[in-house]
Amino acid sequence: MPGGAGVRRPDHQTTTRDPADLSAEAVLAPYLRAQAADFLRSLRLHREHSAPTDPGPRGADAAASALRRSARRISGSLHTFRGLLDPVWADQLRTELAWLSGTLAREHAYSTRLVRLLEALHQLSGAALPTARSSGGSATAPASASPAAPGQERAALGVGTARAGALLERQLTLARTRAHSAALQALGSSRFHAVADAVALLASEVPLAAGATGPAAEALLESAERAEQRLLGAVAALPPDATAEPYNEAQDAPWHQARLLLRLHRYAHEVVLGAPDPVLAGAGNALDRHRDAAEAAAAAAAAARTPRIAPATAYALGVLHADQRHEVEAARGVFRETWPYAAAATAP
Amino acid sequence: MPGGAGVRRPDHQTTTRDPADLSAEAVLAPYLRAQAADFLRSLRLHREHSAPTDPGPRGADAAASALRRSARRISGSLHTFRGLLDPVWADQLRTELAWLSGTLAREHAYSTRLVRLLEALHQLSGAALPTARSSGGSATAPASASPAAPGQERAALGVGTARAGALLERQLTLARTRAHSAALQALGSSRFHAVADAVALLASEVPLAAGATGPAAEALLESAERAEQRLLGAVAALPPDATAEPYNEAQDAPWHQARLLLRLHRYAHEVVLGAPDPVLAGAGNALDRHRDAAEAAAAAAAAARTPRIAPATAYALGVLHADQRHEVEAARGVFRETWPYAAAATAP
Repeated sequence: MPGGAGVRRPDHQTTTRDPADLSAEAVLAPYLRAQAADFLRSLRLHREHSAPTDPGPRGADAAASALRRSARRISGSLHTFRGLLDPVWADQLRTELAWLSGTLAREHAYSTRLVRLLEALHQLSGAALPTARSSGGSATAPASASPAAPGQERAALGVGTARAGALLERQLTLARTRAHSAALQALGSSRFHAVADAVALLASEVPLAAGATGPAAEALLESAERAEQRLLGAVAALPPDATAEPYNEAQDAPWHQARLLLRLHRYAHEVVLGAPDPVLAGAGNALDRHRDAAEAAAAAAAAARTPRIAPATAYALGVLHADQRHEVEAARGVFRETWPYAAAATAP
Repeated sequence: MPGGAGVRRPDHQTTTRDPADLSAEAVLAPYLRAQAADFLRSLRLHREHSAPTDPGPRGADAAASALRRSARRISGSLHTFRGLLDPVWADQLRTELAWLSGTLAREHAYSTRLVRLLEALHQLSGAALPTARSSGGSATAPASASPAAPGQERAALGVGTARAGALLERQLTLARTRAHSAALQALGSSRFHAVADAVALLASEVPLAAGATGPAAEALLESAERAEQRLLGAVAALPPDATAEPYNEAQDAPWHQARLLLRLHRYAHEVVLGAPDPVLAGAGNALDRHRDAAEAAAAAAAAARTPRIAPATAYALGVLHADQRHEVEAARGVFRETWPYAAAATAP
């Protein structure tokens, strides 16, 4: 049982607060106001960089990323500390922020997924991938390299790998472009303007629950600890590596759930202790990579379902799929290694 | 540098000889005679089990395996201790034994390769493999399972996996049948009868070099140590894991070479110390698995070069290829862990 762990106080962190000073007004309200201010600043930056005179999309990307960052933190805190806030307001704003950050995240996800898959395909250079013998057009196929092992045929970079890359690029670029349009449409919608107005109000005044203005250290800590307990429970329930079936994607779900709960715990940690915990951030990165690899594997499988692709293309996509599923497993290993509590580290 | 390692004497082994008693006549000759007797016994067993009245091929398989075992040990000792033996005789018998064990090994290799690949395919159950949409015949395709993650499609066992299994079974069974005929033909050839005669002579008298009948402890140990130094040099020269390109099969060659040198070292160890070393056997098993996985990956790639296969089949073979290449990497990790000398364990 993970009982008695309490909110983790890392030794290396010197800026932690004295818990005796904790109250919703003293701790939660400044945090939410600061995140709301960040949100509004990122929104302004995003508008500036989205102007047609802007030299490139990098500034807009960074601003959208910062916007999502604040939206996640506000939304997470509204969830964890709901009991200290006006619940109707909290639930409504949380729903709208989830819609917004979900919409903005999609473009970024497609673009990083494409980069990840193209990099993985690049690693296949030198693999004994089959050349597209039956489909002609082999004028550009590299000659097989000198001393090959018996029964193997080396193709410096199989035709299938190049075709798989082109197919993924086409599919994911199309998806990204659609997501980009959807994000621009969302940012111009009246629904978005209502969210922005609500966040602007939050930047000046946080609607606390009645009674949350007095000393409420206990309620604040209890909320944070509930978030931690949910996380610890989810991590303890993760299927042990020994029973893992690498290609059973249904087994990914509890890991994705742990990722979301870890995020809530990290934000609660930021609220209560005033600073992020780098160890939790490391564990969170492992779960982010787990999610990215799982989705990249699914994208390779989806591309292989394209009608009328050449067998060599399908073959390269199969290699890619397996490769990303191995990355999924590797990310689980990294998570277990970086996880600061005992429960997950000792799992078989 | 691996200098000063000497022939390893494991602590757990109580039957080791006093090196002062070592001479070619006292140590090498009994070893060769014993292996020759084993060879002849296995040959007799193989003939009995190959009779048409025999209930099954298992007895003949076991006898062939024992035959190869003795042939490898005789041939390896002739190589390592060549300086203590009649060199013309040693070189000639070694060549013939290599021919024989190579011929007998092929059938076994195809059959274990097929088992390995079918087992790996079985692990793919539950993978998001693409179903053969464009190729019809989907009446037997399993309905996609309930709650699937967004963008993923679960097929309990993809059509491609079943087809890949059938293709591999056809190809490797054909290869195994051909290897079986070749082995039977070899065992009935006059070339084989000459080998069997030479081994029968060896069972009664070992043709030592002039002078090898006196106390020759030093020459025996020097030969064994040279075999060990060659192995240590090869292991030290293995490319470090950090620079490994998982799909570059040209990088397998030094590992295959280390496997052969480890085998020679193990047999020399048996000759000098009178018993096999289980730690070296463990390291050898890891290199055997390395070789098996590399050859299974090549077989999957070869199957994918079959003309006119369905994309779903090619896809499953690609997954299989990547899977076996990951097994190659895993076997390298196990080798580094079990390797009893310091050199390989500390490689990055």
